[in-house]
Amino acid sequence: MRISADPSTDTADYEFAHQLRVRFAETDAMGIVHHSRYLPMLEEARVAYLRHIGHPYSAIRAEGIEMNVLEAWCQYRKPLEFDEVVDVHVDLARVDRASFQMGYLLTVDGEVRATGVTAHGAVTPDGRPVRLPTWLRELG
Amino acid sequence: MRISADPSTDTADYEFAHQLRVRFAETDAMGIVHHSRYLPMLEEARVAYLRHIGHPYSAIRAEGIEMNVLEAWCQYRKPLEFDEVVDVHVDLARVDRASFQMGYLLTVDGEVRATGVTAHGAVTPDGRPVRLPTWLRELG
Amino acid sequence: MRISADPSTDTADYEFAHQLRVRFAETDAMGIVHHSRYLPMLEEARVAYLRHIGHPYSAIRAEGIEMNVLEAWCQYRKPLEFDEVVDVHVDLARVDRASFQMGYLLTVDGEVRATGVTAHGAVTPDGRPVRLPTWLRELG
Amino acid sequence: MRISADPSTDTADYEFAHQLRVRFAETDAMGIVHHSRYLPMLEEARVAYLRHIGHPYSAIRAEGIEMNVLEAWCQYRKPLEFDEVVDVHVDLARVDRASFQMGYLLTVDGEVRATGVTAHGAVTPDGRPVRLPTWLRELG
Repeated sequence: MRISADPSTDTADYEFAHQLRVRFAETDAMGIVHHSRYLPMLEEARVAYLRHIGHPYSAIRAEGIEMNVLEAWCQYRKPLEFDEVVDVHVDLARVDRASFQMGYLLTVDGEVRATGVTAHGAVTPDGRPVRLPTWLRELG
Repeated sequence: MRISADPSTDTADYEFAHQLRVRFAETDAMGIVHHSRYLPMLEEARVAYLRHIGHPYSAIRAEGIEMNVLEAWCQYRKPLEFDEVVDVHVDLARVDRASFQMGYLLTVDGEVRATGVTAHGAVTPDGRPVRLPTWLRELG
Repeated sequence: MRISADPSTDTADYEFAHQLRVRFAETDAMGIVHHSRYLPMLEEARVAYLRHIGHPYSAIRAEGIEMNVLEAWCQYRKPLEFDEVVDVHVDLARVDRASFQMGYLLTVDGEVRATGVTAHGAVTPDGRPVRLPTWLRELG
Repeated sequence: MRISADPSTDTADYEFAHQLRVRFAETDAMGIVHHSRYLPMLEEARVAYLRHIGHPYSAIRAEGIEMNVLEAWCQYRKPLEFDEVVDVHVDLARVDRASFQMGYLLTVDGEVRATGVTAHGAVTPDGRPVRLPTWLRELG
């Protein structure tokens, strides 16, 4: 298991937050958000974070780099429900030469609902691993 | 992080396998299966495993128990592509009094593509934690 | 086929618009948004419309009414791509005693991408049909 | 609206059927399959139908043709629930020079649950419309 970071549950430890609202289509028959639906939320927040720091994902893709997902982990502490407004706090947790990790904290009105970590590499469009972009390694 | 198991990449270490075929709807613009789409595959295999051992999930739900997901982790080793036939190997990795962990290995024609772990508890339909069913604790 | 309305492609014909951004998870291996992913966008816009007119869907559900989907239709005129900002224009196209139809127009920077129609009824949480709420029939 | 076919609710009118089982991840907070989740089921059945008649979709893609979706329509007659085994009956309803329509009937133990129609064109990987393959026009 590559993922080591245990994400903080203190919103102050995160540099950026992205807000979204739970879709009905994301719920399941338990009346809560299905556990697989958190990963697209983390991704949406990750994309917003990259846009926020001046490196929109579409620009990264235009340079011929895809950031593939090597690992993903999520801890579900308290369910999310339909129509709730979620703050997804994002942090660049760790940067190595060939991969990086992002940490996430999901809160609703300040209440902790979930944490997550994703680990990423950089690949060409046909899937060959490449070095991380310089700007990203310098953020580490 | 509750999940400790590092799932084996040897199919012989798993007691059950469920086969499925990748849907086009599960792919993304990288031309491969989106990383969030593995979790429903693990779930489908988990449901098939429970049916296989004589405890179909619908029977468990009929007894007033939902098996909620506490944590999920996935490692993406080699992409899955549209129309590939995937063997999802399943193993009951660990059973404690109030939670259990399942390990997963995804292969295509014997080639390792991904591993995963999910941790579960037992809750009533309104989300109150209850003890695991006896048959499940006895499997541990 | 119950759906009759052919939605206008003129944004001026719609009373409300909801904006959203395409998620990477919504794309498929053709590099565009998968056709099944438009329906949750229409739903998100429908929920936003109901909130806008003072009848949030969670309030409707709290009164014991679910608005089930009887029919859905979508016409894909020009693909949506990752990260595009989509305006989903919404209109209450038709209200009968037991069902209603919503029309939708999806545009990006004013360019038409798709149109859609959904037909809905009202049911109790256990699925028994009931009359539409008075406020909804009065909007027809 | 291009779609005209009103699909039969008689299984005898269909040339092929594909069986699948409802995933828990496909349900929503109404306890039934979310209406957007029918389209991937139709797609899975369409792909199985093409494989059945000797033209697997991966072979079609290998020839540089994608079958894009022009329109989709679904009528939800009776909900689908988790773990139900669904027969998706498929029929090539209509073939024109540049597009074709497929009709669908979803049944569970012979009981009608939904019908659907999808209209398709043929495009190159970069989205330029091309003529339908000869074998497909000859099926019309």
